[in-house]
Amino acid sequence: MSSLPETAHRVLAETLGQLVLVRLRGGKSLRGKLKSFDMHLNLVLDEAEELMGDGKWRKLGTVLIRGDNVLMLSPIT
Amino acid sequence: MSSLPETAHRVLAETLGQLVLVRLRGGKSLRGKLKSFDMHLNLVLDEAEELMGDGKWRKLGTVLIRGDNVLMLSPIT
Amino acid sequence: MSSLPETAHRVLAETLGQLVLVRLRGGKSLRGKLKSFDMHLNLVLDEAEELMGDGKWRKLGTVLIRGDNVLMLSPIT
Amino acid sequence: MSSLPETAHRVLAETLGQLVLVRLRGGKSLRGKLKSFDMHLNLVLDEAEELMGDGKWRKLGTVLIRGDNVLMLSPIT
Amino acid sequence: MSSLPETAHRVLAETLGQLVLVRLRGGKSLRGKLKSFDMHLNLVLDEAEELMGDGKWRKLGTVLIRGDNVLMLSPIT
Amino acid sequence: MSSLPETAHRVLAETLGQLVLVRLRGGKSLRGKLKSFDMHLNLVLDEAEELMGDGKWRKLGTVLIRGDNVLMLSPIT
Amino acid sequence: MSSLPETAHRVLAETLGQLVLVRLRGGKSLRGKLKSFDMHLNLVLDEAEELMGDGKWRKLGTVLIRGDNVLMLSPIT
Repeated sequence: MSSLPETAHRVLAETLGQLVLVRLRGGKSLRGKLKSFDMHLNLVLDEAEELMGDGKWRKLGTVLIRGDNVLMLSPIT
Repeated sequence: MSSLPETAHRVLAETLGQLVLVRLRGGKSLRGKLKSFDMHLNLVLDEAEELMGDGKWRKLGTVLIRGDNVLMLSPIT
Repeated sequence: MSSLPETAHRVLAETLGQLVLVRLRGGKSLRGKLKSFDMHLNLVLDEAEELMGDGKWRKLGTVLIRGDNVLMLSPIT
Repeated sequence: MSSLPETAHRVLAETLGQLVLVRLRGGKSLRGKLKSFDMHLNLVLDEAEELMGDGKWRKLGTVLIRGDNVLMLSPIT
Repeated sequence: MSSLPETAHRVLAETLGQLVLVRLRGGKSLRGKLKSFDMHLNLVLDEAEELMGDGKWRKLGTVLIRGDNVLMLSPIT
Repeated sequence: MSSLPETAHRVLAETLGQLVLVRLRGGKSLRGKLKSFDMHLNLVLDEAEELMGDGKWRKLGTVLIRGDNVLMLSPIT
Repeated sequence: MSSLPETAHRVLAETLGQLVLVRLRGGKSLRGKLKSFDMHLNLVLDEAEELMGDGKWRKLGTVLIRGDNVLMLSPIT
């Protein structure tokens, strides 16, 4: 994966510093402030939280996510 | 995967701005307006919805999907 | 995967516009008219149908299949 | 995978037109006349059959198998 | 994956010598002092421990983790 | 994987024509005379046998194994 | 994966000829004397043993492990 479509890049760039919901392969969901990203969807989230089985969010702090685990990503508006 | 067959590209290009159904590896189904795509099938959908277990669609807003999770994609006509 | 064996390419080229059965990793079976293909087995099927658990075929319309999900493919004669 | 060991290539070349048993990842077994192959183990089988759960072989006709699903392959002598 | 986003690199570089929590694909969690990393997220942890099913941490000593197993990583503050 | 460590290559080269035990991803075990190998661990075994669930070995004849299915390999001495 | 971080290389180089514990994807654990390694974590272990379900170690002799199955590795001190 050598690039992201231009619109994808713009979606990410416009979301920097804002809340984003990230779904991972295997079922985990994380949310946090998008601090950085690259074309592989390697992500750094600040004030990240992970959705637990009971529907609550557990605080994780800063998280670096390896891009090939990312299923999809949505800005939270 | 360095390119899509020409017809595939045409199918996607003709679907821009229209509704598309996306099936992901692992079983998830999403639908939304196709906002952008690239040759890896990285996709941005607007007004995306996810099919839930009970057959209802849950609103997700704008979604960026990492292409290597895509199983298949159909224009909704 | 940078090419298909010549015979494979010929099998596909001769099947263009005709019915093909596609088996995907994970167990799904699809059939439809082969509209296009590339060397990665990215495929576009027209008038595609998906085999359901009850043995019936559900109409999908035009479908773009990401090649790395393809297990095998047979012309339907 | 940019090549096959020379002996592997010879095993395949000597088996062209003859019966071969192919085991796929995930457990499927196929047999048929080997019509073509490449260095990725993309295969075309003629008069292919698939081993069913009840031990019987079901006719598939000509089959193109994507190489990265191949676990192993044996000439049937 | 040929690089990490600059912020990701900075997060890792600032965490060198400090405690880090690493989640692996498949569910394992490890923690330890981050001794080195590369752009593939190959990691060396010192005084590493692994989270066991009973919630206790088992000592592992120095551990080298192959990067493609890494799901995500957080500095422990 | 563009090469094998020199010692690995020597282990394989010294085992040519001798019995080898091969464990595959997914749990299968095979043994046979190592006829050829390459740097991807594509293997050709002669007089190969497969370990069945009942602990018996079933004869397979000559087998070509796709290297990326190989978990590990031991000379049988 | 084109290289290992320098510290990782040093950990491995210092462990040559000494006991190492290797965890594989899928849950297997092996230990043995590290005879060689490369940057993909392809490994040769001498006097290798495999941890069985009953907690005992079974002798395997010399083992070549394909690097992409390696989850993590620790020197045994």
